[in-house]
Formats: sequence, C-alpha cells, structure tokens
Amino acid sequence: MNENILGIIAGILTSASMVPQLVKVLKEKNVEDLSWVMLLVLISGVSLWVWYGIMKEEWPIILSNAFSVLLNSTLLVCYFIYKK
Amino acid sequence: MNENILGIIAGILTSASMVPQLVKVLKEKNVEDLSWVMLLVLISGVSLWVWYGIMKEEWPIILSNAFSVLLNSTLLVCYFIYKK
Repeated sequence: MNENILGIIAGILTSASMVPQLVKVLKEKNVEDLSWVMLLVLISGVSLWVWYGIMKEEWPIILSNAFSVLLNSTLLVCYFIYKK
Repeated sequence: MNENILGIIAGILTSASMVPQLVKVLKEKNVEDLSWVMLLVLISGVSLWVWYGIMKEEWPIILSNAFSVLLNSTLLVCYFIYKK
C-alpha cells in the first residue's frame, strides 16, 4: 500500500478515537477525570511529533499530530474553565 | 536536532501520557468511563502507524506505536474483565 495513504488512514483512526473525549467534556462540563499534567505532557509530545514530521517532510504525521495538539489544547482550556 | 532523538523524546512523552489511564483502571478496577469501540478504533489506528513505521523504516514511530498497541490492548482486556 502507498505509505501516504496508509499514514492518512492511520491518522484518521487515531484522531477519530480522541474526539469522543472532547465531546463528553463539552457536553457534561465535567473534567474530574482529566489530569492537566498528563494533558501538558501529551501536548508537548504531539508538538514534538509535528516537529519530527516537518523535519522528515511527512504530511500524515504533521496533520494527525497537529489535530491532536488542537484537540488536547481545547481539552486543557476546558479543564481550567470547568474545574471546580 | 537529530531526527531520531527528537522522535524518541516525542515517543516517550506521548507514551508516558497514556500510562496513568492504565494504572487508574488496574487500581480502581473501574472501566465505566472507557469505550471499547474507541479502544478498538485506537488500536487499529496505532497498528497502522506501526505498519507505516516499518514501511518507512523509522524506529521512533515503530517503538512508540507498538507500545501504544500493547497498552491499549491491555486496557481492552481489562474492559472485558472488569465491566459489570
């Protein structure tokens, strides 16, 4: 299989699996089960993956990790808005 | 920065951010907040990333996603053991 197509399918699947968490938090406005430390670690990690993708010029890696930065940053913002 | 070192640091950060979820499930034996559908989607996605890494011969991608397959498969097994 073409590597880029494989990477895009992989990226869609891993990105899709993160969406329900955000939907749940936005709906229930409950962030009790989230850890902001872990979100920060995760955001740092996926940001480095974006950088890695840019250095290697691999679009599937850049796109899926950029989506993950966006989604987890939103979760982090929600955490500080909704926490009691 | 060397691309492989960057990828390995990125992989350690994204892998580390998943560990607390597993520790929590193993400790509390409570899987109420997990979705087995999402775990399956995620496992499929990261398995395809392993395949992508093998095709591109990129060790940071292979190692971090293989760890993720292992960790999320364990979560899936826990789900079916602990669900009420």
